[in-house]
Amino acid sequence: MTEDRLQAVTDEVVASFAETKDDRLREIVTSLTRHLHAFARDIALTQEEWEAGIDFLTRVGHITDAKRQEFILLSDVLGLSMLTVGINAPTTANATESTVFGPFFVDDAPEVALGGDIAVGVKGRPCWVSGSVTATDGSPIAGARIEVWEADEDGFYDVQYAGDKLAGRGWLSSGTGGEYRFWSVRPSAYPIPEDGPVGDLLHATGRGPMRPAHLHFKVSAPGHRTVITHIFDSSDTYLDRDAVFGVKPSLVVDFAEHGPGTAPDGRELDSGWASVAFDIVLEKL
Amino acid sequence: MTEDRLQAVTDEVVASFAETKDDRLREIVTSLTRHLHAFARDIALTQEEWEAGIDFLTRVGHITDAKRQEFILLSDVLGLSMLTVGINAPTTANATESTVFGPFFVDDAPEVALGGDIAVGVKGRPCWVSGSVTATDGSPIAGARIEVWEADEDGFYDVQYAGDKLAGRGWLSSGTGGEYRFWSVRPSAYPIPEDGPVGDLLHATGRGPMRPAHLHFKVSAPGHRTVITHIFDSSDTYLDRDAVFGVKPSLVVDFAEHGPGTAPDGRELDSGWASVAFDIVLEKL
Repeated sequence: MTEDRLQAVTDEVVASFAETKDDRLREIVTSLTRHLHAFARDIALTQEEWEAGIDFLTRVGHITDAKRQEFILLSDVLGLSMLTVGINAPTTANATESTVFGPFFVDDAPEVALGGDIAVGVKGRPCWVSGSVTATDGSPIAGARIEVWEADEDGFYDVQYAGDKLAGRGWLSSGTGGEYRFWSVRPSAYPIPEDGPVGDLLHATGRGPMRPAHLHFKVSAPGHRTVITHIFDSSDTYLDRDAVFGVKPSLVVDFAEHGPGTAPDGRELDSGWASVAFDIVLEKL
Repeated sequence: MTEDRLQAVTDEVVASFAETKDDRLREIVTSLTRHLHAFARDIALTQEEWEAGIDFLTRVGHITDAKRQEFILLSDVLGLSMLTVGINAPTTANATESTVFGPFFVDDAPEVALGGDIAVGVKGRPCWVSGSVTATDGSPIAGARIEVWEADEDGFYDVQYAGDKLAGRGWLSSGTGGEYRFWSVRPSAYPIPEDGPVGDLLHATGRGPMRPAHLHFKVSAPGHRTVITHIFDSSDTYLDRDAVFGVKPSLVVDFAEHGPGTAPDGRELDSGWASVAFDIVLEKL
């Protein structure tokens, strides 16, 4: 078939969307059609490869359930998630940068008080996390909703274990001066789930599954742009090869180690603990 | 984020595939990354739209099972299936043209003898289908495997009904002179399944779900290129707006109508019946 006849197929599909009432939807499906067709033509997609693609997506769909989101994982390893973060980045220079949302957020995480413990028994070295929430003009934001979640020392989130126990996640409100503080565990590097089709893709392409150690934040406040981000451990060896391309220099922070003794909140600890400070800056809407 | 910073994300993802051992796979994932990212950038994909896309694909995955393939349906309505057919079209001018495979093929359809009946009781007007299988040089092909499948008069395939009954499908071998003949029912126009996410997409974009009446063929023979195609009824009103873009002029044929009486195979029919002739020409490999 000549290029003209292939182009005619694309034109026919684009024309079929002409009656779409929603202008934005028409823009999206038209662009999707053109780029999807350009991809197939550029690589001269074979029938067998098309079938393999259908089969791959079917497997991604079938492994996805209420606790596992393989489509997000696929978007993450193809860099689409980080590209979307980049397209929608705040324009105010000193606002906290965003990174990938990831597939492990849970809506009904428990509330903890300022200074409370989100670990709820997950394995790992106790870690004191503190900082402030301010606007880009420096004014403190009281009552900001700070949602945090993280994997345990073995690299697993609560939802990756059998049972319904929520641990290593929670939300708290910033104090009257914008301050926040809570106990968690020091994050560990871990592989993204490798036992599904996305793992197969990583293996087939010689890519590693590791993510550098990080703690997830989602911070929102009325009148401000919500930020979804991580803090990364500056001592991690995987910072330059995150499987999901999430690392940004402004999000890499130093974790301090401490021996047994009195923690900042007066708690007496028999064994060592860590601490990290991270100030969050929200852009005004 | 500037264009340079967005391009840096794409470049980082492409670079991550550099160690892919299989050259073809590297070509595919590299092109996929570039086109996927170009799509997101062209439309300035928002976070909410990204989430809607993840949710849409999840629904496509969850409605797909052993009997329903919503990813193929999605590929069909986006024209990717017909584009792939076009990319892989035979190069010999007189070979039978291909069209979409569709989601309703079943591997274990029953064998029928030459002149046998594939309808197995499905509703519809009896239809005598006959023709020949030849190579592009005109030589007859004996023993070609001819697989056929179709919807009933109400527009449903067997697999769309409850239960496991196979009907309206079967396979037969061409005779020593390449000839073939069988009974089926005259095909009817029908809507593709509209109760899932692909139906939602059609509704939201003002597109119709109808496919013009057709009978599916998959014909294969050793040393020849397999053809997957349909014949379309020339009297159908949906020929110019097939929901999956499958119509090609060379595949549109005339069905004849006959009153009660003696059929070509000597069978006596109390009511009217139809007939159609279609010669299949396979390209040599």
